[in-house]
Amino acid sequence: MTQNRDADRTPVTVIGLGLMGQALAGAFLRAGHPTTVWNRSAAKAEPLIAQGATLADSIADAVEASPLVVVCLSDYDTAHKLLDPVGELLDGRTLVNLTSGTSAQAHETAEWAARQGSAYLDGVILAVPQGIGTADAIIVYSGPRAAFDLYEPALRSLTEATTYLGGDHALSALHDMAVLGMMWGVLNGFLQGAALLGAAGVDPAGFVPLVRQGIGIVTDWLPGYAEQIAEGTYPALDATLDTHRAAMEHLAQESESRGVNADLPRFIQALADRAVADGRGGDGYAAMIEQFRKPSGARS
Amino acid sequence: MTQNRDADRTPVTVIGLGLMGQALAGAFLRAGHPTTVWNRSAAKAEPLIAQGATLADSIADAVEASPLVVVCLSDYDTAHKLLDPVGELLDGRTLVNLTSGTSAQAHETAEWAARQGSAYLDGVILAVPQGIGTADAIIVYSGPRAAFDLYEPALRSLTEATTYLGGDHALSALHDMAVLGMMWGVLNGFLQGAALLGAAGVDPAGFVPLVRQGIGIVTDWLPGYAEQIAEGTYPALDATLDTHRAAMEHLAQESESRGVNADLPRFIQALADRAVADGRGGDGYAAMIEQFRKPSGARS
Repeated sequence: MTQNRDADRTPVTVIGLGLMGQALAGAFLRAGHPTTVWNRSAAKAEPLIAQGATLADSIADAVEASPLVVVCLSDYDTAHKLLDPVGELLDGRTLVNLTSGTSAQAHETAEWAARQGSAYLDGVILAVPQGIGTADAIIVYSGPRAAFDLYEPALRSLTEATTYLGGDHALSALHDMAVLGMMWGVLNGFLQGAALLGAAGVDPAGFVPLVRQGIGIVTDWLPGYAEQIAEGTYPALDATLDTHRAAMEHLAQESESRGVNADLPRFIQALADRAVADGRGGDGYAAMIEQFRKPSGARS
Repeated sequence: MTQNRDADRTPVTVIGLGLMGQALAGAFLRAGHPTTVWNRSAAKAEPLIAQGATLADSIADAVEASPLVVVCLSDYDTAHKLLDPVGELLDGRTLVNLTSGTSAQAHETAEWAARQGSAYLDGVILAVPQGIGTADAIIVYSGPRAAFDLYEPALRSLTEATTYLGGDHALSALHDMAVLGMMWGVLNGFLQGAALLGAAGVDPAGFVPLVRQGIGIVTDWLPGYAEQIAEGTYPALDATLDTHRAAMEHLAQESESRGVNADLPRFIQALADRAVADGRGGDGYAAMIEQFRKPSGARS
């Protein structure tokens, strides 16, 4: 396969060729970047070699092949096990770590990279591998601004939704967790509803369009909620917490009476109860932020 | 104010003039329906009278004024307290109840209405009052098809997103609960994220665009999940439950280490743990439906 390789495109190395790593390398290749790849099991490189990638003989060769080294592994322990022996080769290069982890792991890796003389960007991919190179992928980065600016054109090969969050390396992991938490909220809410409707003989497929509309409505509330959270006042924009609380009771009752799991409804109701007990019943839902801010185990 | 009242528009009565009832009556008036209103406290009718509504002297007069009687009250108990004394006047009319409640309450009211000789539609409004008459409102109805078909043109004055769910009066309340559960999922997920980012000094407003993108991605997964739920097989479309489970651990750890509430992350993690213990770790997230289907207290 002929590739549109431009001499002025930054050479890139991709280490780790799981499904996501393969997708990343493929996107760099399609954008014309000379791309070197390495994986513990070399067989995974074959489709990429067919697309024009160079397979490095060793991880050391892989690091030395490019000024921009992108790592996407299953976890930070794996990343360290592979990179620690070749750390000094990173001197003067930029390491972009797209491995998922906590902000503490990002900080620790940033310190390690600094000791090697490497610029370090911690990134998080909010996408499935098939989404890489399309509008369905979001990738966020944190770390030194200069390193991001220098390699932003190359990183944009992975998605146009390439966002720099700031200098604190923790920011990528924190945003990742925050967005994932919201996604699990959608999924669990959908599954609770699907279980409830299913118990009444309703096909969940018919429920999807209504869910889409509901998601659209609630998403449009979020900027107002964010403003209230920043200001610390929570006038009811849609409904009061008392109203939400009463409806939560209905969901729990419906779930119980239909014989489906009511743990999630009862859990969120208990959270709302605590906000009401704190005197927030007449406020809007954003007042619940105060409950989310309290360390677990702390009760007002 | 001059109103565009057409002689061929169905006369409508609206009982209950809270913020939502006022919005409903206003939308009927704007669509040219002769509109009679009644509320325990008559003062709330004043803005509607100025728009051309007729204030009934009694609830009996209000019911007798129109073939279509729309009720929107704070709860079913209030609805019964008001309607029971005038039940026989509903004979031959259609009662549309937009009061929020459980499916058991909808069934009970449907039986009551049948005894009065009234056709009964149980409806649910998925909107805030300001959304009525705009594309931001969804209203779903369940009950006899003939009654819905007869009054659908009038009901469409309230929103184009007017949906008939089926003959079982339970369906509106069930769909309401299902959509609300999903909406609370979005809100709680957002607030967890906002609390976490806030603890790191990040303004929640900056988080909203990323949340929107994340919501878009996860919403697009739902039709596939619905299909899997219907089929009872859950191949991983995006990530495996094992992968989700590991990321949930990160969210819980991040929340704990930043001193924000980790109860919700730990709760959803425990739910995922049960699915993994049931052998679903290699499946996709839709396999969690099996946990939501189990009655509370039941473990595999």
